[in-house]
Amino acid sequence: MMELAQKVIDCCRTLATCTEEPGRTTRTFLSPPMHDVHRHLSGWMRELGMEESIDSAGNLRGVRAGTKKRYAIGSHLDTVPNAGAFDGILGVVMGIALVEALGLSAPAATIEIIGFSEEEGVRFGVPFIGSRATVGTLELTPEMRDAIRAFGLQDAGLPAARLSSETSAYFEFHIEQGPVLESLGLPLGVVDAIAGQSRLTFIFEGKANHAGTTPMHLRHDALAAAAEWILEVERAGLIATAGAIVVEPNAGNVVPGLAKLTLDVRDACDEKRRAAVSKLIQSAQQIGRRRGVAAHYEERLDQAAVSMHPSLTNSLARAVEQSGYVVHHMISGAGHDAMIIAPHFPSAMLFLRSPGGISHHPDEDVLVEDVAAALHVGLELLRNA
Amino acid sequence: MMELAQKVIDCCRTLATCTEEPGRTTRTFLSPPMHDVHRHLSGWMRELGMEESIDSAGNLRGVRAGTKKRYAIGSHLDTVPNAGAFDGILGVVMGIALVEALGLSAPAATIEIIGFSEEEGVRFGVPFIGSRATVGTLELTPEMRDAIRAFGLQDAGLPAARLSSETSAYFEFHIEQGPVLESLGLPLGVVDAIAGQSRLTFIFEGKANHAGTTPMHLRHDALAAAAEWILEVERAGLIATAGAIVVEPNAGNVVPGLAKLTLDVRDACDEKRRAAVSKLIQSAQQIGRRRGVAAHYEERLDQAAVSMHPSLTNSLARAVEQSGYVVHHMISGAGHDAMIIAPHFPSAMLFLRSPGGISHHPDEDVLVEDVAAALHVGLELLRNA
Repeated sequence: MMELAQKVIDCCRTLATCTEEPGRTTRTFLSPPMHDVHRHLSGWMRELGMEESIDSAGNLRGVRAGTKKRYAIGSHLDTVPNAGAFDGILGVVMGIALVEALGLSAPAATIEIIGFSEEEGVRFGVPFIGSRATVGTLELTPEMRDAIRAFGLQDAGLPAARLSSETSAYFEFHIEQGPVLESLGLPLGVVDAIAGQSRLTFIFEGKANHAGTTPMHLRHDALAAAAEWILEVERAGLIATAGAIVVEPNAGNVVPGLAKLTLDVRDACDEKRRAAVSKLIQSAQQIGRRRGVAAHYEERLDQAAVSMHPSLTNSLARAVEQSGYVVHHMISGAGHDAMIIAPHFPSAMLFLRSPGGISHHPDEDVLVEDVAAALHVGLELLRNA
Repeated sequence: MMELAQKVIDCCRTLATCTEEPGRTTRTFLSPPMHDVHRHLSGWMRELGMEESIDSAGNLRGVRAGTKKRYAIGSHLDTVPNAGAFDGILGVVMGIALVEALGLSAPAATIEIIGFSEEEGVRFGVPFIGSRATVGTLELTPEMRDAIRAFGLQDAGLPAARLSSETSAYFEFHIEQGPVLESLGLPLGVVDAIAGQSRLTFIFEGKANHAGTTPMHLRHDALAAAAEWILEVERAGLIATAGAIVVEPNAGNVVPGLAKLTLDVRDACDEKRRAAVSKLIQSAQQIGRRRGVAAHYEERLDQAAVSMHPSLTNSLARAVEQSGYVVHHMISGAGHDAMIIAPHFPSAMLFLRSPGGISHHPDEDVLVEDVAAALHVGLELLRNA
């Protein structure tokens, strides 16, 4: 199994070179390098006798036909800017590797591998485009439609992107992207639930003016207002992040006229999360009023916390135990495609330890023995499910 | 004179359409639209019998040959992003209009009009490229050299860009870019001195990580550190601006790993300005230490406050009076090309009222009667100087 695990890691490293930016890995929804990823993985799928295709949302699909139950295994192929090599794509590559490991001697289950086109929300500020298409909850915006057509796909085929109603389980393998498993010295974690998340855009609209001739007390500085609010975000008392900011005109000698920011809030408790978001909206408006800066906001996402399927998760935990590993149950602070699929199909999710807890960073890594462990568990699961 | 003043305003409005960004005026150092500005103004100069050229720093030069003293009249042709139509270029266009007004009947002074290629510091973060070339204090960086060659000029000719040693005075007409003259109900202001300015770049270097899985107390958020510091800038007790910020990776779901900001500080007292800069450097480092975020800085400019030439400024004030306007002496909070020229050639500067105090903004304006007043003063000055 170590050999196959190494093949998985090598494949992820190779695919990390498919990027929009030379020297770093950045691959957003249906960007040109996604063609290369599709080509590479489709080739491997064909070698294994799978029937592969790209659906209208840009998801890579590969089916190993069988006669028993139908399982789906998936994760996403897009990345954040300047990403590591494993977030998302590891789960897709592991799915194909499991089909390879099952070989001809395996039970005749139908297995569909899915490489979702988009999960990170980088290109259009809205995440989960790929997985939402497979459960019929994606509404295409004009910009998504343009991107789909520019990639050479037909958006009219979107309804056909839905997962087969015969799918009896969805499995996702994913790096933890946090420090918990490493701190416990464990290779694997069984995910019981995924924290809910809010994503919003805030705009502070002041007045651009000359940085040398405008007295401080007459300014309406959009960046200073944003700065005050960013510190409120940090003090909100839960996982809250102002991750992106764009300022206009963004010149050293001009008082900033406009600042546009993102807010990302996560919590396992939806009530607590929504209360924190409301408070941060209020605080943006109070800061704005005091400074003569208009504060606008737009909710981009309100994703409720999602439980994984209890009995399927039990089966996963049993597979971990039968493979000889310690079972550790945990909550995912990060969103995953599984949270989109879970309300529609029984879903379970397995975390692999993240060395250094590092993710969304070029140093992101995974241990070959942890990949081997997860492949063991996956085979155990598919043989007994 | 109102007709000529209207011609000046119309010319500025036309030249505002020479831009790098459709729909707004943005014209940085030797950007392609600068060719159009040169073409347009050169044409007018040739109509007036002037000898025009572009020097190796990209400055537009036009000489009306004469036999008496030699005067230079200039300002800059570049703009901030999303600029108005008058900052800088008004002074160049007014210079040409003055040559037109002088006509053949005028005293035979040699008058050189200069449209400086760069004053705002937008393209390379360093201002006054054009005027520094004309006094021999410009050191070309590799990036400037590339820009000069890409524009079709020979950087080897830079020494020839220096102002003739026979130049006995430099005059600059410029909009005030602030609210003072308007608040006094005056069209014109005589500038006695230009405030000194510091420009620095600050970099906060933290650690990019996943916004959902990194506990708040384990973060090294570069943007949060920057935000805390931006509020210190605002409280520094003098004119201080954090005008531009760039964050990496700048994605909604990633804790910011790096934030790069500009600092601009101005004051008529150099000691007070430098003390404030030192304090802001210290505060960046303190904030960084407390947060596990490295704080670096780079000084880009330390421009001392500059006095205009006393007796030339007296002549200018007399011309204002003799033209029938109230003389108001003032300090310029903004930097101008005159501050670069003044240590080398006697210099004087006249402000025109800025409606609403607005500048570095598309709403920037100037009143036709104020332009006519300034042209009156200019003619008076040139006839008597």
